[in-house]
Amino acid sequence: MTAHDVRVDLADRSYDIEIGEENLSKIGGFILDRKKTKHAVVITDSNVDPLHGDRTADFLAESQFEEVDVWAVEAGERSKSPEVAYELWEAMLQQAVDRDSVVVAVGGGVVGDLAGFIAATFARGLAFFQIPTTLLAQVDSSVGGKVGVNLPGAKNMVGAFWQPHGVLIDVATLNTLPDRDYRAGLAEVVKYGVIMDAEFFAYLEEQTEAINRRDPEVLKTIIAKCCRLKAEVVQADEREESGRRAILNYGHTYCHAIEAVTGYQSVLHGEGVAMGMLCESRLAEQMGRITADITQRQLSLLDKLGLPTAPPEGIDPEALLDKMWRDKKVQAGKIRFVLPDRIGAVSLVSDATEASILSCVFPQ
Amino acid sequence: MTAHDVRVDLADRSYDIEIGEENLSKIGGFILDRKKTKHAVVITDSNVDPLHGDRTADFLAESQFEEVDVWAVEAGERSKSPEVAYELWEAMLQQAVDRDSVVVAVGGGVVGDLAGFIAATFARGLAFFQIPTTLLAQVDSSVGGKVGVNLPGAKNMVGAFWQPHGVLIDVATLNTLPDRDYRAGLAEVVKYGVIMDAEFFAYLEEQTEAINRRDPEVLKTIIAKCCRLKAEVVQADEREESGRRAILNYGHTYCHAIEAVTGYQSVLHGEGVAMGMLCESRLAEQMGRITADITQRQLSLLDKLGLPTAPPEGIDPEALLDKMWRDKKVQAGKIRFVLPDRIGAVSLVSDATEASILSCVFPQ
Repeated sequence: MTAHDVRVDLADRSYDIEIGEENLSKIGGFILDRKKTKHAVVITDSNVDPLHGDRTADFLAESQFEEVDVWAVEAGERSKSPEVAYELWEAMLQQAVDRDSVVVAVGGGVVGDLAGFIAATFARGLAFFQIPTTLLAQVDSSVGGKVGVNLPGAKNMVGAFWQPHGVLIDVATLNTLPDRDYRAGLAEVVKYGVIMDAEFFAYLEEQTEAINRRDPEVLKTIIAKCCRLKAEVVQADEREESGRRAILNYGHTYCHAIEAVTGYQSVLHGEGVAMGMLCESRLAEQMGRITADITQRQLSLLDKLGLPTAPPEGIDPEALLDKMWRDKKVQAGKIRFVLPDRIGAVSLVSDATEASILSCVFPQ
Repeated sequence: MTAHDVRVDLADRSYDIEIGEENLSKIGGFILDRKKTKHAVVITDSNVDPLHGDRTADFLAESQFEEVDVWAVEAGERSKSPEVAYELWEAMLQQAVDRDSVVVAVGGGVVGDLAGFIAATFARGLAFFQIPTTLLAQVDSSVGGKVGVNLPGAKNMVGAFWQPHGVLIDVATLNTLPDRDYRAGLAEVVKYGVIMDAEFFAYLEEQTEAINRRDPEVLKTIIAKCCRLKAEVVQADEREESGRRAILNYGHTYCHAIEAVTGYQSVLHGEGVAMGMLCESRLAEQMGRITADITQRQLSLLDKLGLPTAPPEGIDPEALLDKMWRDKKVQAGKIRFVLPDRIGAVSLVSDATEASILSCVFPQ
């Protein structure tokens, strides 16, 4: 373990997140140290396959793997579907994948969620390794074990909690990430600062220049910090039962609604999180929970990191409200928000009025 | 708890199996004691729906449930498919099923496995209650948390471990069970005696007459005993990792092959288990592990309970062997069997020769 590695301790399963630069070449040993196996199924997508999917397969073949399958689904959220899951299940059956085989996800959140769902359900559960290649997946979806697919009109509606056996993060993979995707990932990074760690938020404020040029040392520090913070939350509430895990949803009530009304096309998830955090911070202001400078600091940091600070023009706030009512997070007839108390701490709030919710969509 | 009730203690979840006669009417309270909810989704099949599905829904509506949906899938193994799962997921989305809702399976193993898979995967997991209405489901699939669907040519290939929140067994539901299905369930009952409990096996030998007339007191005793024995095994090996749980597969290596070559049509699972136990007991004889009287006692008991004691004529032993090689239980290139050491104890054996395996299909 280096200073940047993270251990996630869960009742269900404990595992390591190894964070390095150009460490993808060690993937064979990383897996074999954790699971005796000869057969790996690499699931990736059409964008990542030529960049890192094939390389991963080559590194595995150079280790003691006797059989390595690489399956690339079409890049994009539409592959996170029961139909694609069915195709993968059938492919696994044909390739005689069994309980001694491992599933390796190489890609962003879509690939990780889909491959994790396949690992969770094929033969009632296979060992699962993640190689997240987007910043968003590195700081978010690779910790916590949420896997699944979408139903038409309902994101992540079918899924499971299935913890990986290990996560390997190579910051060098971020060099191939398009600028917009990189920035989208930074929104979730900022989120961790707001919900849990004022010192980390201040570090981000100081490091915007290094972050914008993707400095690998700063990235390793940031990713390790985010994984540690998320692990802390997930360890306290593995299956989203106590409510603690809900704090990770800061910005997400508006975000999910914005994503839904824009058809999951024009707004990246991280961009939606940036917009949603600012909406929810304004909501906290309106409810008298914080002062305006708390929102201002977030706005300024997100702006310096090149993120959008307002929802797309032309969005109808009423349409957002409709979507919020259909969200999984609605409980007992109330829309729930995670709102900042200050930089570094949040609370769950469910008594916002519809009028306040509507008025916070666009800055006044 | 009455003398017949069983507690299953698992790391994942602990739950009660309540066994009674005409206790289905108490299902509302049984669920509400274990989960605060107002919305139940009852999943049943076209055979069971008119007998017990609608009744269950009525009993729930008479309790404090505000919304009760009843969905009947077509009776038969073919409903245990990803396609039917998809239809149910979509129906749940349309009925605004959320994490506070419960799924209630009313029926045999197919319904329990399918409904359990839906419960395990919708919104990453809903509370799940089982009301098994076949003897086979009551003594077997209602304990242990294995849920799932089939892929073409591969039973139970997609699934999860998802423990129920409670199981309610009403022996009166067995009065509506066709004779052949009832007898098929008895094969699994006999299996528990062979693998774990010589005293229970002797009790069954004494009670064949009462069993054949479906005496409710004897049934309650038998079902409670089987659930307790299965719980003991599952508690020791919840996720089929240590090998202990494998003892439940006595008779099943041949059984699965017989089911596969007959297309899952002409042979009921329990009938296949009866045939398989006798094949595997003969295999143990051939390998010098037991004497012939051990097989003879099983044959005599199964025969008195009206079960078939040999595979259907015309089955090609070579075809069975082909199917065995494709089974999930094949590990490291060896076909694994659970073979009796005596009545009441079994061992895992993987060094049977192909010639022995073939020669045990039909009695000499």
